[in-house]
Amino acid sequence: MPASPVENRAEIERLFTSAPFIKDLGLKLVDVAPGECTTTLALAKRHQQQDGYVHAGVLTTVADHTAGTAGASQIAAGQYVLSTDIKVCLMRAARGIKLHSRARVLKSGRRLIFTESEVFCEDERQEHTLVVKAMVTLAVVSGPS
Amino acid sequence: MPASPVENRAEIERLFTSAPFIKDLGLKLVDVAPGECTTTLALAKRHQQQDGYVHAGVLTTVADHTAGTAGASQIAAGQYVLSTDIKVCLMRAARGIKLHSRARVLKSGRRLIFTESEVFCEDERQEHTLVVKAMVTLAVVSGPS
Amino acid sequence: MPASPVENRAEIERLFTSAPFIKDLGLKLVDVAPGECTTTLALAKRHQQQDGYVHAGVLTTVADHTAGTAGASQIAAGQYVLSTDIKVCLMRAARGIKLHSRARVLKSGRRLIFTESEVFCEDERQEHTLVVKAMVTLAVVSGPS
Amino acid sequence: MPASPVENRAEIERLFTSAPFIKDLGLKLVDVAPGECTTTLALAKRHQQQDGYVHAGVLTTVADHTAGTAGASQIAAGQYVLSTDIKVCLMRAARGIKLHSRARVLKSGRRLIFTESEVFCEDERQEHTLVVKAMVTLAVVSGPS
Repeated sequence: MPASPVENRAEIERLFTSAPFIKDLGLKLVDVAPGECTTTLALAKRHQQQDGYVHAGVLTTVADHTAGTAGASQIAAGQYVLSTDIKVCLMRAARGIKLHSRARVLKSGRRLIFTESEVFCEDERQEHTLVVKAMVTLAVVSGPS
Repeated sequence: MPASPVENRAEIERLFTSAPFIKDLGLKLVDVAPGECTTTLALAKRHQQQDGYVHAGVLTTVADHTAGTAGASQIAAGQYVLSTDIKVCLMRAARGIKLHSRARVLKSGRRLIFTESEVFCEDERQEHTLVVKAMVTLAVVSGPS
Repeated sequence: MPASPVENRAEIERLFTSAPFIKDLGLKLVDVAPGECTTTLALAKRHQQQDGYVHAGVLTTVADHTAGTAGASQIAAGQYVLSTDIKVCLMRAARGIKLHSRARVLKSGRRLIFTESEVFCEDERQEHTLVVKAMVTLAVVSGPS
Repeated sequence: MPASPVENRAEIERLFTSAPFIKDLGLKLVDVAPGECTTTLALAKRHQQQDGYVHAGVLTTVADHTAGTAGASQIAAGQYVLSTDIKVCLMRAARGIKLHSRARVLKSGRRLIFTESEVFCEDERQEHTLVVKAMVTLAVVSGPS
């Protein structure tokens, strides 16, 4: 039995505040609903690769964690999710002031959850450009998390 | 005309020391040869997700950057590479003291370079376990980098 | 300069009738518009794997060819597209009477076109279920096709 | 308890002869060992796309089925495998007389099996060129197959 969105919200917040890598990165939860999640990241120099673009690892982390959170919104108490397959299309080199990501569950199974996520880059003129499309497969794991 | 490995080595080092995200992460270049690269990362709490495992974003960044460096070892001066497609299989939850990654070029074209990379996790008993297998496609870009 | 949809339509039809594998498979073009394509396939026993489900290779071919056609709708005369990276999530075992696929271009560049496609399986009660989500990256190639 | 290779061999052969799509395609089992498989396909006009190259769907089917067979060599009687995530790099346009594929299991778990496979194209001068590298994730399913 999936936890109700209300019960589950605390767990969802925990995925952000108790994950050291996500806290360090600066990724913030914007919103979560059953099977959906949106996040944002204020870009800084430390997110860049050698040429001033956002590092592919940052973009992938954002796409993956947002997708994982969308998936985590649909599991029962005592379960957690682990990414098993990440596929990312990096369509444009990203340079700007903020990243915005949204993810949704495509199919929620007992053992696997299939999700997709997108990352948009916001520039100085507040224009949002799609820079990443990703698909993330999550394994549903039971037991002490 | 590809740069000679000797000329190119300085550029390869630059990919690590001048990429803020990689410097912050702590990823170190171990070795580079034409079409090959090995790297290592000493694991710390800040690399973890909420359950104490290495975050998928860290594993993907290591797989991607090592692959990108293998690709960068085969391009001409004045060119650079950008990841366009990243595919990652996360085969085991990773917990340990060090990551080791190796990448190699599968096919080097004028416009696209296809690479694969692996990430091993070293535990307290110095045992190495394969945790990630990845394929990274790189676009070869000319012009001011 | 991209060909107009009207000029390009003949070329699009040619991708289906002159591709022996697609003709043999039985995939039909339903509609094409700039950056979009829909197709359909009447399922038969010959499309199955050993357990009576549609073979993953059939599902992937449908997702890939529909995506390639969406991409081909946006290139100039004298150019053609080749798939370079295919990523497929097979979310449910497919069994039914028809497949329906739709694809759209996510980003159309000079050298690479990023697309996504979905495949739905229609059963005896005319219910459509999403069975595949895919991302296909296409290289734009010039010269004699 | 995994079936012994000897007991399992009959089931492995069955994956080829009883899968209509594979039989139609013409894919032949060359060899199978625990966690490994090799196959071959004699190329004909019917395997081509519109420009005379082997269709991406054929290449993907070969990579997928060879990988699935490598995985199936390591499961117990009464279990079967279904592809859930297919990632394919199509590195070169393929034109020739035969395809050769080899696959191996990277990690065999209770619920998921991670595999990789390669496809080589043999030309008229009997030269083999790597055209595809793939990673295929398989779900282990129990029950009536």
